[in-house]
Amino acid sequence: MLVDLTVPINEQTPVYPGDPATKIAPAGQIAKDGYNDHFVSIGTHVGTHMDAPNHMLENGKTLDTFNVNQFVGRGRLVTLKDDAFDLKKLEDADIQEGDIVLFQSGMNKKYHEAEYFENYPAMPKEIAEYLVKKKAKMVGIDMCSPDHDEFIAHKILLAGDVLIIENLTNLEMLEGKEFTIYAFPIKLQLDGAPARVVAEIT
Amino acid sequence: MLVDLTVPINEQTPVYPGDPATKIAPAGQIAKDGYNDHFVSIGTHVGTHMDAPNHMLENGKTLDTFNVNQFVGRGRLVTLKDDAFDLKKLEDADIQEGDIVLFQSGMNKKYHEAEYFENYPAMPKEIAEYLVKKKAKMVGIDMCSPDHDEFIAHKILLAGDVLIIENLTNLEMLEGKEFTIYAFPIKLQLDGAPARVVAEIT
Repeated sequence: MLVDLTVPINEQTPVYPGDPATKIAPAGQIAKDGYNDHFVSIGTHVGTHMDAPNHMLENGKTLDTFNVNQFVGRGRLVTLKDDAFDLKKLEDADIQEGDIVLFQSGMNKKYHEAEYFENYPAMPKEIAEYLVKKKAKMVGIDMCSPDHDEFIAHKILLAGDVLIIENLTNLEMLEGKEFTIYAFPIKLQLDGAPARVVAEIT
Repeated sequence: MLVDLTVPINEQTPVYPGDPATKIAPAGQIAKDGYNDHFVSIGTHVGTHMDAPNHMLENGKTLDTFNVNQFVGRGRLVTLKDDAFDLKKLEDADIQEGDIVLFQSGMNKKYHEAEYFENYPAMPKEIAEYLVKKKAKMVGIDMCSPDHDEFIAHKILLAGDVLIIENLTNLEMLEGKEFTIYAFPIKLQLDGAPARVVAEIT
């Protein structure tokens, strides 16, 4: 069974404070042109998307330079403990090299509230370092960012070539399940890109 | 082994005649903002992308309304014969319900030439009808369109809920292989969307 972990992108999709809002304009219409077509203006970090090292690191790699093998792997779901990232729970999740680790905070229920971008748990340095040490391929969260100021977790993860997926949804569908993650960003040669993220429950 | 069948999207990516060109502008820069971020303006049919019924049919379904199961299936590669679609070759390919059928024309070698959009083989009505009859999930091509004027193949396929992937590349990597296709568009609620298309050779 496949589960879509992706939020839709439209003009109402919330954006990280300071990021440009999405704009959608018709570019062709059936009555006049024979087909419908649109011109879409989006930030590279809108909706469910992936961060490349270039997002936070000077001269860091752009997203297109990663082989697609990086985007597919065994998924592991780790829930937070008392609304905080917990190293013990992560250690208990049996993370192997190449895994894609998803943290479930429940923040996605507040996606359309201001709180989503203001009051969320930061990922401690130790968690980011553990994921790099274990050689996870990616980490995914149902929040807008693993960091508040300074972007410490971002920098540790991206320097270790652990890609970051933000704004996931539907993680509750994966509770207690074994699954593979397919997280495919569009092929922009930039710091990040919107992605379609799907779990295949095995 | 995974094979990426997707072209990169940048300001030089060719667009279908009349479609808006891609524009990429910085939205954040590490030196000033602490992170790199971009604002990207793209047509819904740029690069490797997927067409939904709404592209060609009045009140047709938009791409987000399809379950992600539609985007994954057994792939079948069918080469053209003397630079033309050939029903006999398609019949010989043992198409089953739910298959994703990729036609290899070799046109992708001319992606950056004017000829790519002018001189390519149209898909005969019979081929489109056969794919609908066989209940293929999707059809993919290494060309800009299955049609010239009138969009006959588009309309037959899309009316039959066979989605269309255009501007594929690297199909020669699939010759003689068994494979599964994962073709994931970003979750725009529109007539189509850029997609990442990957084959898993089994």
